[in-house]
Amino acid sequence: MSSKLAWLDQEPKPLNSEATAAARARQGELTKPPGALGDLETLAISFAGWQGRVQPSIERVHISVFAADHGVTEEGVSAFPAAVTAEMIRNFVRGGAAISVLARALNATLEVINLGTVGQAVIAGAYDVALGPGTANFVNGPAMTDAQLHGALEAGRQSVERALAGGAQLYIGGDMGIGNTTAAAALACALLSARPEALAGPGTGLDERGVARKATVIRRALDKHSGNLKTPRDALQRLGGFEVAALVGAYLRCAQLGLPALIDGFIAGAAALTASRMRAGAKGWWLFAHRSKEPGHAAILTALEARPLLDLGLRLGEGSGAAVAVPLLRLACQLHAGMATFAEAGVSGKL
Amino acid sequence: MSSKLAWLDQEPKPLNSEATAAARARQGELTKPPGALGDLETLAISFAGWQGRVQPSIERVHISVFAADHGVTEEGVSAFPAAVTAEMIRNFVRGGAAISVLARALNATLEVINLGTVGQAVIAGAYDVALGPGTANFVNGPAMTDAQLHGALEAGRQSVERALAGGAQLYIGGDMGIGNTTAAAALACALLSARPEALAGPGTGLDERGVARKATVIRRALDKHSGNLKTPRDALQRLGGFEVAALVGAYLRCAQLGLPALIDGFIAGAAALTASRMRAGAKGWWLFAHRSKEPGHAAILTALEARPLLDLGLRLGEGSGAAVAVPLLRLACQLHAGMATFAEAGVSGKL
Repeated sequence: MSSKLAWLDQEPKPLNSEATAAARARQGELTKPPGALGDLETLAISFAGWQGRVQPSIERVHISVFAADHGVTEEGVSAFPAAVTAEMIRNFVRGGAAISVLARALNATLEVINLGTVGQAVIAGAYDVALGPGTANFVNGPAMTDAQLHGALEAGRQSVERALAGGAQLYIGGDMGIGNTTAAAALACALLSARPEALAGPGTGLDERGVARKATVIRRALDKHSGNLKTPRDALQRLGGFEVAALVGAYLRCAQLGLPALIDGFIAGAAALTASRMRAGAKGWWLFAHRSKEPGHAAILTALEARPLLDLGLRLGEGSGAAVAVPLLRLACQLHAGMATFAEAGVSGKL
Repeated sequence: MSSKLAWLDQEPKPLNSEATAAARARQGELTKPPGALGDLETLAISFAGWQGRVQPSIERVHISVFAADHGVTEEGVSAFPAAVTAEMIRNFVRGGAAISVLARALNATLEVINLGTVGQAVIAGAYDVALGPGTANFVNGPAMTDAQLHGALEAGRQSVERALAGGAQLYIGGDMGIGNTTAAAALACALLSARPEALAGPGTGLDERGVARKATVIRRALDKHSGNLKTPRDALQRLGGFEVAALVGAYLRCAQLGLPALIDGFIAGAAALTASRMRAGAKGWWLFAHRSKEPGHAAILTALEARPLLDLGLRLGEGSGAAVAVPLLRLACQLHAGMATFAEAGVSGKL
């Protein structure tokens, strides 16, 4: 790894344990039975530790959607054509995609980072980080060159630094890329020593036969790269996607700079798994938003010991599942700050 | 049942199946793989059927919290003293309770209905529907007189009519009443022929011995009333609480007048179970917000064939778990209305 990427080796920022303890004590004084607000209490306490203040708030949310194409689509692993990746970048920018609607509803900042699509078009309104016309088909060789891997990780890092410069209190990374459930499943298979049949799923809508074909493609890729998947970085370079690598860089940078990241579904989960294998402590800065309907997500969540907030059968990507969970985090902080204590309200305590 | 309560026998309002079908068709045209937004798609389609328009919205939310005391507290079934019920009514009105904070955050209307507490104080800022100093101890006899049952059901009905007069598009009923998990568990035992040990839980924080005592108290009550629990209304009158009966009246009225109700946790669930036994079709107007940590809730949800939206370990009541789910419903409608179609965005369809 070149010295340019020395930042990858930085340690995660420590949490503020005094703020955590003070927030926990405050929860015990609010007018409700102890623990009665369940995960909402835990969330408020976590944000206190992240923000270093007893009464945290989450007004400013930053969403970066990373988009890129995947060479493996030439194996027929997706229900939609690769052209959709660039078409959806335009849809993000014009405000018609799910994540666009959610960003408006949440008053969140939304930026789109185009890491390279088959047509290599420059799309107005999206950050252009042209790494190539998508990854190479990883059935035949590594998905990315060194330069492409570094460029994608850097794109993730830079998005977090832009988020912080804008005052963000929460980071959401989204993904778009026809073929990326195949890449994410292959990457997770390598990291978890799992069988392709266990992690390949319908993605955007494959039927049973399509899913079986996808598992076969992943098996061929794992065989091809067998012996060259010794580190998580190897696996990411050989089997990942540009947008997956960007999310890895982003999640690591969030932990280093102390910006909590709300992790979306299957693609984001594969990136988080990779990032946590590169730096175990980084996970302390992440929250898991939801359990995707994509079947391979369960294995990733288990490996990360993650208990997601929502289980709504979502499987869209784009950061959409994370965005949907934002109001829960905000309400948790509002309850924590706005409720009266037993003393303030003159309410009797436990018998 | 007196003729005054003839409204209880009205049929639920039919759903608008044309709007449902049109909303379902629209979901299939939005720029995402079919079904990728999971429950958020179903929610938008449900609201289309309820509101009778293809693009529903949920701006105006009405929350009624019903509070009352329970004679069965003299058996030592709660971790908190009965005085807390009236103290919490003041806390609701003054804005310091969880539901007060949530109502502000959601820009929802919040009203508090005082159905009768041990001190029988009139509390400024709450609707005063004085039915008595709480229910009678149902270990010794019926919890409510006929007049009290009717008054409580009426209080629920009137709250729904106020909600509609105010233009509400969603109704949330909340509960407050020290001792009410005992009443709700007893009622659910009667309706489900379940064992008290299976449905009694810690409520506001009983230890294991306290839960065992609570189950014994419920067993004594079931034995006392055995043979007189033939109808759901009998069970409600003999074992319920004023606030439980008010919720029953409210949920039935919501279905009759066509106002969707978002059902909170264990107490609300026991009321919904009772209401659905009185009028099976009413359930078509209800959504279940969350799975409470109170262990008896699972049996109620199963009996109602309900799949709640959230599972966050909440067990507070007040309507708080329902309020927390409101942003999901709003986002579902915003996605449904705001996303571009494939044609509008020029995005390619499935291969």
